[in-house]
Amino acid sequence: MNAAPLGIFDSGVGGLTVVRAVQELLPGENILYLGDTARLPYGSKSPETIRQFSDQDAAFLVGKGVKAIVVACNTATAHALPSLQAKYRLPVIGVIEPGVNAALANPDAERIGIIATRGTIRSHAYQHALALRRTGLIIHGQATPLLVPLIEEDWLEHPATTQVLKTYLEPLVAKGVDTLLLACTHYPLLIPALKQVLPAGVRLVDSASTCAEHLRCELERLGMLNGQGAEGSLDIHLTDLSDEFETLARRFLKRAPGRITRAVLE
Amino acid sequence: MNAAPLGIFDSGVGGLTVVRAVQELLPGENILYLGDTARLPYGSKSPETIRQFSDQDAAFLVGKGVKAIVVACNTATAHALPSLQAKYRLPVIGVIEPGVNAALANPDAERIGIIATRGTIRSHAYQHALALRRTGLIIHGQATPLLVPLIEEDWLEHPATTQVLKTYLEPLVAKGVDTLLLACTHYPLLIPALKQVLPAGVRLVDSASTCAEHLRCELERLGMLNGQGAEGSLDIHLTDLSDEFETLARRFLKRAPGRITRAVLE
Repeated sequence: MNAAPLGIFDSGVGGLTVVRAVQELLPGENILYLGDTARLPYGSKSPETIRQFSDQDAAFLVGKGVKAIVVACNTATAHALPSLQAKYRLPVIGVIEPGVNAALANPDAERIGIIATRGTIRSHAYQHALALRRTGLIIHGQATPLLVPLIEEDWLEHPATTQVLKTYLEPLVAKGVDTLLLACTHYPLLIPALKQVLPAGVRLVDSASTCAEHLRCELERLGMLNGQGAEGSLDIHLTDLSDEFETLARRFLKRAPGRITRAVLE
Repeated sequence: MNAAPLGIFDSGVGGLTVVRAVQELLPGENILYLGDTARLPYGSKSPETIRQFSDQDAAFLVGKGVKAIVVACNTATAHALPSLQAKYRLPVIGVIEPGVNAALANPDAERIGIIATRGTIRSHAYQHALALRRTGLIIHGQATPLLVPLIEEDWLEHPATTQVLKTYLEPLVAKGVDTLLLACTHYPLLIPALKQVLPAGVRLVDSASTCAEHLRCELERLGMLNGQGAEGSLDIHLTDLSDEFETLARRFLKRAPGRITRAVLE
């Protein structure tokens, strides 16, 4: 039992979909969230830069006394998870392994599509993790850099979004994917639009709910769950504050974000 | 006459449209370009953060011995130009004044539309500069945050781009704009697509060519042009390097970008 907060970070506010999933599954946990809004997005930047930024993000959370770190950003997980796990003694959990495990929980999954930022697709982290776990998979990764801007513009049902999704998903549909990994923490908001464009029967696996479930198992295994009955707190720290980020935070959390503080990274 | 390089900076590689215009107009000038690719984009971030980043960008160029600074980023011009001009003795030129002057060079211009990032539109810098110069103007600013991602995806003629442009431009067309200010250095690449969506007769004014023309006048007035006949050099410094930025640089410059160096800002 451990009442210290969980530290969750992302390049921006997309990781709040993970926060929301954790709040639903583990309502007693206190959460300290860091979004590096001053330097977002990470998805188009180089591996070295992503590692440097992620290291500063994790150091900020560790400095605040968190009991575990969740890397709620697929690009940061893809490039920085091993180095963060090597550096810190506390549990560091990413979003890739939970997503991959959930995708392969179905024994019939054979043709896996992955949609993500360029950085995540180029890292081959998902492709590698999938290939390690099951032989004979047909894997197709598709960089979909326009989806985050469309989600942030709140054009979830706009005809342009449908058009963009059709263009991006066409090669995946042509390959007959049976499972689609939504490998970016923004994408759960697009699930209704994705369902309209994809053939019936394609299974969608998202980063947020699968990561929360994995976190619960890990904390339980390590005896680190917070046993108190009261509802946990949520403190949001952003490296850049603006009205826009507050509006986005509300949309990702589906509730008022509460107190938001400006964070200064070392 | 002054052979020192011109310093030109932007949040990323969009400012290379300005570089290209300067190279065409002033082929003898040496240019030192800085793109803050590690922290791009600036357009969605807060005024304080944009000022802090711009100040570091300018300091980098000044440290390299430039004779003048061109802020080839509309968002940075909107928020940081006055403070940069107050801080440095060398000429600091932005993209807003040249664009506004060019828009109003036509005495019949009455209804002006502005498309730009959220940061630029929210700053009201263009609206203010226009209103100061001519009374009775009808001004309509429209934030168009999806255009930069679409340009960077190279979807200049994609149906989704047409759909996005129609949605964004509809309120401007309804107001009967006679002039459209393309208030982002990325947007010159969209001119053909814009022409297809806008009614015939709407005048397009872009940041790149107008800024280069203004720079020529200023350097001439101050006796700071480089008089040597040889073709000037171009050194590109980026705070984050990746293949993607090199590809984009080539598209914005319409030629091979030459040597690109990683810049470390203080």
